[in-house]
Amino acid sequence: MTNDRLRGRIRVGVIGGNRPESRFLALAREVGRLLAERRAVLVCGGLGGVMAEAARGAREKGGLTVGILPGNDPAAANPDIEVPLATGLGYSRNSLVAMNADALIAVDGEYGTLSEIAFGRIYGKPVIGLGTWDIPGVVKAETAEEAVRLALEAARRHAEL
Amino acid sequence: MTNDRLRGRIRVGVIGGNRPESRFLALAREVGRLLAERRAVLVCGGLGGVMAEAARGAREKGGLTVGILPGNDPAAANPDIEVPLATGLGYSRNSLVAMNADALIAVDGEYGTLSEIAFGRIYGKPVIGLGTWDIPGVVKAETAEEAVRLALEAARRHAEL
Amino acid sequence: MTNDRLRGRIRVGVIGGNRPESRFLALAREVGRLLAERRAVLVCGGLGGVMAEAARGAREKGGLTVGILPGNDPAAANPDIEVPLATGLGYSRNSLVAMNADALIAVDGEYGTLSEIAFGRIYGKPVIGLGTWDIPGVVKAETAEEAVRLALEAARRHAEL
Amino acid sequence: MTNDRLRGRIRVGVIGGNRPESRFLALAREVGRLLAERRAVLVCGGLGGVMAEAARGAREKGGLTVGILPGNDPAAANPDIEVPLATGLGYSRNSLVAMNADALIAVDGEYGTLSEIAFGRIYGKPVIGLGTWDIPGVVKAETAEEAVRLALEAARRHAEL
Repeated sequence: MTNDRLRGRIRVGVIGGNRPESRFLALAREVGRLLAERRAVLVCGGLGGVMAEAARGAREKGGLTVGILPGNDPAAANPDIEVPLATGLGYSRNSLVAMNADALIAVDGEYGTLSEIAFGRIYGKPVIGLGTWDIPGVVKAETAEEAVRLALEAARRHAEL
Repeated sequence: MTNDRLRGRIRVGVIGGNRPESRFLALAREVGRLLAERRAVLVCGGLGGVMAEAARGAREKGGLTVGILPGNDPAAANPDIEVPLATGLGYSRNSLVAMNADALIAVDGEYGTLSEIAFGRIYGKPVIGLGTWDIPGVVKAETAEEAVRLALEAARRHAEL
Repeated sequence: MTNDRLRGRIRVGVIGGNRPESRFLALAREVGRLLAERRAVLVCGGLGGVMAEAARGAREKGGLTVGILPGNDPAAANPDIEVPLATGLGYSRNSLVAMNADALIAVDGEYGTLSEIAFGRIYGKPVIGLGTWDIPGVVKAETAEEAVRLALEAARRHAEL
Repeated sequence: MTNDRLRGRIRVGVIGGNRPESRFLALAREVGRLLAERRAVLVCGGLGGVMAEAARGAREKGGLTVGILPGNDPAAANPDIEVPLATGLGYSRNSLVAMNADALIAVDGEYGTLSEIAFGRIYGKPVIGLGTWDIPGVVKAETAEEAVRLALEAARRHAEL
């Protein structure tokens, strides 16, 4: 542990499905890498698919990864989660993923991701979309770079409000 | 209290915004009336707008109304809620509204309603839409009568699975 | 459903273990009967042991029974629960049992009951004890009659505050 | 961020009241220091009193501090929380503090602490007490050193099960 503080860093939630197509897995990993390079903390649901690949990318670059889990057991987090947080809330934990991010990047995703997008908007968080649900208020990006850039810009604006 | 059992009745969640246009308020009230006439239990978020009008309609026909509230105080429920349930969960309670319905009818609605639609689909519940979000898996209806008929048919099929 | 309103009745939470000795089961059933005779709504955790016997007693006298369940499935409630509410919160639902009662009666009980007693006190609810944890703030009763009398008196005082 | 992993470290929850006597504040701070020196992660409720002093002590020794908050805003955490987790669950978040610790140390405390002790035992976590509730299953310690030693020993045994 260094004296390098974790508190106060921008936190970006990466949300998406457990079983996306492989191109979305690659996108999620690149998003994770870029977030860590920019010193953002990755927040996610802690399980597989997009969540696991984003965490893997972030860890490749030495980033901090927080996994907010549906079950009771912190050990259920994917291996690249540094700080697992068990909730025992089941799918209701999707609300907490959105609550703990300054901005969200949605990659692909099914109904679980849709609920996280909705909570993101309920909580007034910027949501950037990469091949995800077409919902008013979600800003579309075409590449991982664009998504990370837009998320960090929006998170900074959001933090200044 | 009669010996007439409440347990085992079909439960239909009516979801929608706090401040819809007046035509949606009238629709919600009619949905509430029709559900009560068919002996379904109304489940909702317990507050205003679509929730209050649906409960009002249901009570006009002597129906049972359950309100699953975001705050700690059961007394915050609208006056037509017979069984208020305080959760203290904030918006995360949206998950519980979907969990406690055999089918959902969404009337208009903003991001909160979107989260409830998403949870409905996560939990495999049929969702009928009246002027609400256009989401795959939501079955569109044009009138209160059609919405209630579709919801009850789907709830019965769902219960038989 | 009659026009007899359920809203506004005093709600008493009966809390206790899943597997108490038989004398506590008999006590819980008598508590349930007496609450229903006095038109109070029984709130409990919806499962077995003290919860099931209290609900059984209440139903014998035509009372309303609400079960706040840890899991996702309302059908998991014991057969005497009229209004089951699934939460998917696991043991965290113990907080909601205390939140939704005007007073609590604790019968026997292990650590789950202890958590409900603690939440009762956190939320400022009167707690009556029948052979349960000896905790400051819990008022001891010797019989089901005494417990129900004390709970209803305290709930009325609490409601007037 | 170094490559020094946070995952897999023992996590100890420090629970206690918002407004304890000053001797308990000093104890909490010493507990925090000792936990950090032994590389354990401090988990707490993120607010004031015992929580704030334990986090302050842990940060003095460069330790990682996780605060599981009742409200929606991560910024409400005390200044020594490195990883704040907002839950929006109110007091129900007490369950999550116990869930995310391998062992708990209770310092003084009122009903909130009692609920956390109860959840600790529900989840099978070792609980060490320093001037706190006298509850069966809570192992009493006399000093911060003894409490930390007992907590870490018990957490290791618990992890091996």
